[in-house]
Amino acid sequence: MTDDAALLDVPPDRELVVTADAMVAGVHFLPGDDPGDIAAKLLRVNLSDLAAMAADPLGYTLVTMLTRDIDDDWFERFTQGLEADQRAYALHLIGGDSVSTSGPIAFTVTAFGVVPRGRSVRRGTGSVGDLIFVSGSIGDAFLGLLLAQEHLSVSDAAHSTHLLRRLRRPEPRLPLVPVLRAGATAAADVSDGLVADLGHIAEASGCAAVIHADAVPLSDAAQAIVADRPDLLPFLLTGGDDYELVFTAPADRRQAILEAADRSGVPVRDIGYLTRGQAGIVSVMDGQGAEMPIRARGWTHF
Amino acid sequence: MTDDAALLDVPPDRELVVTADAMVAGVHFLPGDDPGDIAAKLLRVNLSDLAAMAADPLGYTLVTMLTRDIDDDWFERFTQGLEADQRAYALHLIGGDSVSTSGPIAFTVTAFGVVPRGRSVRRGTGSVGDLIFVSGSIGDAFLGLLLAQEHLSVSDAAHSTHLLRRLRRPEPRLPLVPVLRAGATAAADVSDGLVADLGHIAEASGCAAVIHADAVPLSDAAQAIVADRPDLLPFLLTGGDDYELVFTAPADRRQAILEAADRSGVPVRDIGYLTRGQAGIVSVMDGQGAEMPIRARGWTHF
Repeated sequence: MTDDAALLDVPPDRELVVTADAMVAGVHFLPGDDPGDIAAKLLRVNLSDLAAMAADPLGYTLVTMLTRDIDDDWFERFTQGLEADQRAYALHLIGGDSVSTSGPIAFTVTAFGVVPRGRSVRRGTGSVGDLIFVSGSIGDAFLGLLLAQEHLSVSDAAHSTHLLRRLRRPEPRLPLVPVLRAGATAAADVSDGLVADLGHIAEASGCAAVIHADAVPLSDAAQAIVADRPDLLPFLLTGGDDYELVFTAPADRRQAILEAADRSGVPVRDIGYLTRGQAGIVSVMDGQGAEMPIRARGWTHF
Repeated sequence: MTDDAALLDVPPDRELVVTADAMVAGVHFLPGDDPGDIAAKLLRVNLSDLAAMAADPLGYTLVTMLTRDIDDDWFERFTQGLEADQRAYALHLIGGDSVSTSGPIAFTVTAFGVVPRGRSVRRGTGSVGDLIFVSGSIGDAFLGLLLAQEHLSVSDAAHSTHLLRRLRRPEPRLPLVPVLRAGATAAADVSDGLVADLGHIAEASGCAAVIHADAVPLSDAAQAIVADRPDLLPFLLTGGDDYELVFTAPADRRQAILEAADRSGVPVRDIGYLTRGQAGIVSVMDGQGAEMPIRARGWTHF
């Protein structure tokens, strides 16, 4: 960077959206993880926050804290990972800082997006009666982590690949941004776990929430595992790192939202509704209509 | 923070200026340093970058990476340090992330400022013949570091207090922002050392630079030390962490700049000029008109 700081031109009809996320070795990734995967996850968890606000990505600042044993090969693979995602998501690196540390290595990204003035989607703007929607599939990253830690074995190689990929290369749901802008009343990304993040929406909106466990979308791989191990289902609903979107919308927009999501290429399903009750409490109902003993809780990193 | 990301409203007639700086224990500060000092320096080094671009501070994101042994008292003093400077500089915390680390503790700040469209001051826009100006005093932080590390002893208590304060609580030269906007052709903040940062301006502007060592402003404390130890002078000119501004302007604006700086309360002095020659080379002349054997070099942190 030639200057002390970078200039960013925000069009007059746009608001700027800013989010920051950090990743530390031993907490958010393992020191031996592929540097390209680390780079991709670092950018994508931030892009997921932008998607949840219904913002289009613009740029990011990157701070690297590296140890002396990080060699050129490692750094080149890390940089290639960043560059691939910069191209994929039309994102520009606009500045940052590189410092040394005695370890562990760590990274911070602050990402910038823009949203048409007044069109961002917040967490606290859901209403009683709104339906709750969730994108993609839930729980894959939790199962991927179990796999990576060898706490779970999966015989189907395609399932195993899918789960590990979902853990290491989350896909920010930016294709749903137009869907959110057109119809959502509130939204969050699923980083702490579906129940916890929906709880954040409910709490900020002054509502309780009810979801049906059977309606929560699971991947083929997760369905196969849960068929064998139904005891894992609550962990899928509360595990983190899904980077899906959970959002609310009035019931009369249901059909339009599902159709728009279909066109976007990212599947969306409605799984419950906001209701009167203690703000932030999420009730999870099983197939028999009984409440499952699940408490909202944050994701505990390994 | 209630939402996944923060919204920032940039007025249509303003450009956004973004800068990021990180500080790691053992590299940029010592683990035993006062948490309020760490907080202040963290914000101020970023504010200094904004000042160098002629931007007014707007807000910042903060990422903390803390170890388990950081107790409530430490964190409260850190937070109080942030809050005091937020008030002093009209700066708002707009978001961030808190993660745990096995150590060392580290912080990242990304700071945002605004500048009237087209009025930011860059590094690469100086011209041959422009005078070189510097604010405040140079070398105090270097001497403060020697003092803190007990490589230097100073008998005058006021001098000692001044030098340590300059190391730990740099003062971003935001009062000079109107002066820069009105008259500067290029600017940088002095973080890597006067010779190195002036070298950055000269290189980006395609010029060489000549400065007179005797013209470089020194504090009373630094003058007293250099009178005793003239061998330290080159280190003051190349040491870092001054967080002064070095900038260029056409010679016919000299009087207006010095007067405007005087009104701002931050002293400014002209110390040399940009000239034809190898881009980025800074020649430092002594009182006899001979070139001193000083090479531009980065600041090596302890």
